[in-house]
Amino acid sequence: MNFSSKLLEDAVAEFAKLPGVGQKTALRLVLHLLNRDKEEVHKFSTAISKLRNEIQFCQTCHNISDQKVCEICSSHKRDHGLICVVEDTRDVMAIENTNQYNGVYHVLGGLISPMDGIGPADLQVDSLVERLKDGTVKEVIFALSATMEGDTTIFYLNKRVKQFAINISTIARGIAFGGELEYVDEITLGRSIVTRVPYENSLS
Amino acid sequence: MNFSSKLLEDAVAEFAKLPGVGQKTALRLVLHLLNRDKEEVHKFSTAISKLRNEIQFCQTCHNISDQKVCEICSSHKRDHGLICVVEDTRDVMAIENTNQYNGVYHVLGGLISPMDGIGPADLQVDSLVERLKDGTVKEVIFALSATMEGDTTIFYLNKRVKQFAINISTIARGIAFGGELEYVDEITLGRSIVTRVPYENSLS
Repeated sequence: MNFSSKLLEDAVAEFAKLPGVGQKTALRLVLHLLNRDKEEVHKFSTAISKLRNEIQFCQTCHNISDQKVCEICSSHKRDHGLICVVEDTRDVMAIENTNQYNGVYHVLGGLISPMDGIGPADLQVDSLVERLKDGTVKEVIFALSATMEGDTTIFYLNKRVKQFAINISTIARGIAFGGELEYVDEITLGRSIVTRVPYENSLS
Repeated sequence: MNFSSKLLEDAVAEFAKLPGVGQKTALRLVLHLLNRDKEEVHKFSTAISKLRNEIQFCQTCHNISDQKVCEICSSHKRDHGLICVVEDTRDVMAIENTNQYNGVYHVLGGLISPMDGIGPADLQVDSLVERLKDGTVKEVIFALSATMEGDTTIFYLNKRVKQFAINISTIARGIAFGGELEYVDEITLGRSIVTRVPYENSLS
């Protein structure tokens, strides 16, 4: 593209580095910002630089936080005997939105993926094992994606965690609510028959 | 959404104000920025605030520029007797990319749209009329979108411009190159028959 201004070109190039944003979208976003008030654009750019410079990660669960220990980990209303292990912050938000979970979390910061060069040492695994040592934790729930990387990570974590006398569980896999049987893939459908549950249990 | 951090929430809210960016996309972009180096995020936020604070608009054609007069308007290689009237910077870039045009531009900054409350006074119309007064301009080309707003704007501009003894033209409308006849809408196809051109002319 032929830019009439170096400033414009720089801003478009920076936007185009974002995932899923190409040159044309970047230009559209930048021209939108140019039409906004100076104060609003200032708010936008400071929100980003402030986030990157001041953000903290909870010392206990490694979730994104404004304090050294996040609100969930410091809450007395939560069940500290139950740890839900997730990949990242988005998963914590998704589970919190269900209003079905009252335990605490442990954010791994990724999944084991040899293809991307991510091994257990790159994740918050040691600190998870550390949290289990004092015996207050009764159950660990693995809530990871149902992918190759998720399964590999659960396999590895299980080996590290099973030395402690605690329950280890994973979130249920099966047909989504509202899902029509004919559109479900055969692996999910096959596994959901093998791991069928008593009808009485499925009602609760 | 339940955010674990106010900084995170602010950054997501700012991103979600961009056109076509919802809460989920905003969160994905913000988490991507969090994973990048501090210097890179700093570059991103300064590129944006610098753009908004230092950008100028060419005094002659009102295109985005780093100087008071843009490169095109100050170039001696361009034909200053030919003005192409466009809606915004993107159109200038699109026409420049064709390498078919050697004149100068006039950026209106929008189109007349009573529905959106945009009238002629909100556009750079008076300055266009001003540019035509000294007699150096021989032709004005209207290169506006083939929409209701574009046509309304051309109609109004034509009334203002025809007092000068200059040629007034619009870019050709018709079937796009590579377009298959059966998929062309009937208005375009009908008009392209009415405004047919001699075969000899269509070859150049």
